[in-house]
Amino acid sequence: MQKLVTGIDIGGTNVSYGLVTQDGAVKLKESFPIKEFKEVSHFVDYLSQRIIHSVDGLKDYQLEGIGIGAPNGNYYNGTIEFAPNLPWKGVIPLAELLSKKTNLPAKLTNDANAATVGEMIYGNAKGLKDFVMITLGTGLGSGFVANGKLILGHDGFAGELGHAIFDPNGRQCNCGRKGCLETYASASGIVRTVKEMLTSSGKPSSLRNLSTEEISSEKIYRAAIENDPLALEAFDYTGYVLGIMLANAVTITSPEAIFLFGGLANAGDLIFKPVKKYMEEYLLPIFKNKIELKPSALPENDAAILGAAALFWETKH
Amino acid sequence: MQKLVTGIDIGGTNVSYGLVTQDGAVKLKESFPIKEFKEVSHFVDYLSQRIIHSVDGLKDYQLEGIGIGAPNGNYYNGTIEFAPNLPWKGVIPLAELLSKKTNLPAKLTNDANAATVGEMIYGNAKGLKDFVMITLGTGLGSGFVANGKLILGHDGFAGELGHAIFDPNGRQCNCGRKGCLETYASASGIVRTVKEMLTSSGKPSSLRNLSTEEISSEKIYRAAIENDPLALEAFDYTGYVLGIMLANAVTITSPEAIFLFGGLANAGDLIFKPVKKYMEEYLLPIFKNKIELKPSALPENDAAILGAAALFWETKH
Repeated sequence: MQKLVTGIDIGGTNVSYGLVTQDGAVKLKESFPIKEFKEVSHFVDYLSQRIIHSVDGLKDYQLEGIGIGAPNGNYYNGTIEFAPNLPWKGVIPLAELLSKKTNLPAKLTNDANAATVGEMIYGNAKGLKDFVMITLGTGLGSGFVANGKLILGHDGFAGELGHAIFDPNGRQCNCGRKGCLETYASASGIVRTVKEMLTSSGKPSSLRNLSTEEISSEKIYRAAIENDPLALEAFDYTGYVLGIMLANAVTITSPEAIFLFGGLANAGDLIFKPVKKYMEEYLLPIFKNKIELKPSALPENDAAILGAAALFWETKH
Repeated sequence: MQKLVTGIDIGGTNVSYGLVTQDGAVKLKESFPIKEFKEVSHFVDYLSQRIIHSVDGLKDYQLEGIGIGAPNGNYYNGTIEFAPNLPWKGVIPLAELLSKKTNLPAKLTNDANAATVGEMIYGNAKGLKDFVMITLGTGLGSGFVANGKLILGHDGFAGELGHAIFDPNGRQCNCGRKGCLETYASASGIVRTVKEMLTSSGKPSSLRNLSTEEISSEKIYRAAIENDPLALEAFDYTGYVLGIMLANAVTITSPEAIFLFGGLANAGDLIFKPVKKYMEEYLLPIFKNKIELKPSALPENDAAILGAAALFWETKH
């Protein structure tokens, strides 16, 4: 019998889950929309049934447990706490609820921390004891590993670099404060940067032909690969802000490598080059030219499921 | 036989050392000036002799090892690397040199990390798995503990929050960069703040009667306890900068407590109140009202020796 774990990725729009072997092979992957489940109990009933029956067709495999990555996930309590983008309010003890219904042990953490464990077990961070994972999606998520262990913090909420303040008088953030890193360095952040530059800068740009609503990180990327000066400047500025904040994070954990993951990281050199340049420029001399800045090795479509499954394997012992 | 460790504090002016029991009792304490030892070999010869003979008068005690706290100390290599304030240049393998001469195992780390381990073993952080130690001296040192272990980083240089950048266009720092936290939040930082305010602010102040050379953190403290408006504003600004940077550090490790140690921390409420106020104001909501900000419990005169000894006990296993 080979052992399998169900890795679950709870998103604001869809729930994805998959069966993952200890080697990181994804045996099955499915997803369904989350919005129709107004009650968490209905969601748990439905998802539990799908989990239980997901192995029906698979001979010689046994389901060992469940790993969950979720927004505002708390590892210690197995809870989702006050997640603004989910249909259920307050504190949801999702790990316990799923565990009861499926009779399987369940572990839960936030999505970026799950991706970090995924990178450590299945990705480019194999064998590294000190590294940082940055997920660049609509917002900016992060996970920190020190002494070979994910830093969870005393309350299970560690790794929120996206809400470190770059400029206390800066851009308004969804969290209620101003100048958080993710308002600059994320897909939504670079869109805000371009919108600001369209008024503040005189640089020519094909993006000037778009309405404000039409500007997206995708379109900024496409303009940048055609050497659009304003789009290139927006990537440079994104790298400047992220570079300084990574240099600051390095003073705390001194990682061997920093991995960038997610939509904006897929822009390749357009984002990696300025981040590297400014990070090195702002690093304390003892840290210069020591830290690798690398893309994640997790396949983007499976990353969340792999990460959630890795969380289970990693913390099982 | 009771076991003892020699805790050594290497400073720019003096070297202090003491014999410390596993319970943290300091059995003997001595110090001597460092400047006369132009050659590190002479220093090692001299210090080794003193260590070996330090137990001569003590019956029923046995020397187990040596713990060293030093500027730019690297735990993994037991080296002092390019310390600007010491008489010896380059990389000094001090732990190995002392170990060979004394036949005792020796561990070395930087002074703030040693103080952090001291707080964990003998101070207010007993039993805490996630905390931060901030040492406010001439500069700002820091140590981070996560999952019950000191974060050393891949190269042994983690915990340099004093060189996290508060303002990339800010004050010139000794490290060659601009706007490092310690140029604001330290004894020398508050002196710079007052000197700036004496020109930029119209506030009355007894400090205006002093020459620029005479202004010291001690005199700012004395003015502040007599409600000098400018001195109070300088403490408030110091708390603002440190508060924001601590709020940012919290996003990474989510500590249960933050301990302030050293000269500026002795100003009590004058520094604790503004740091607490601004840290809470700039914390991400999920971290608000959770983190204790406390003075260190290490006795100031013995802290460095206790920390260095604790380093040995802690990492012995």
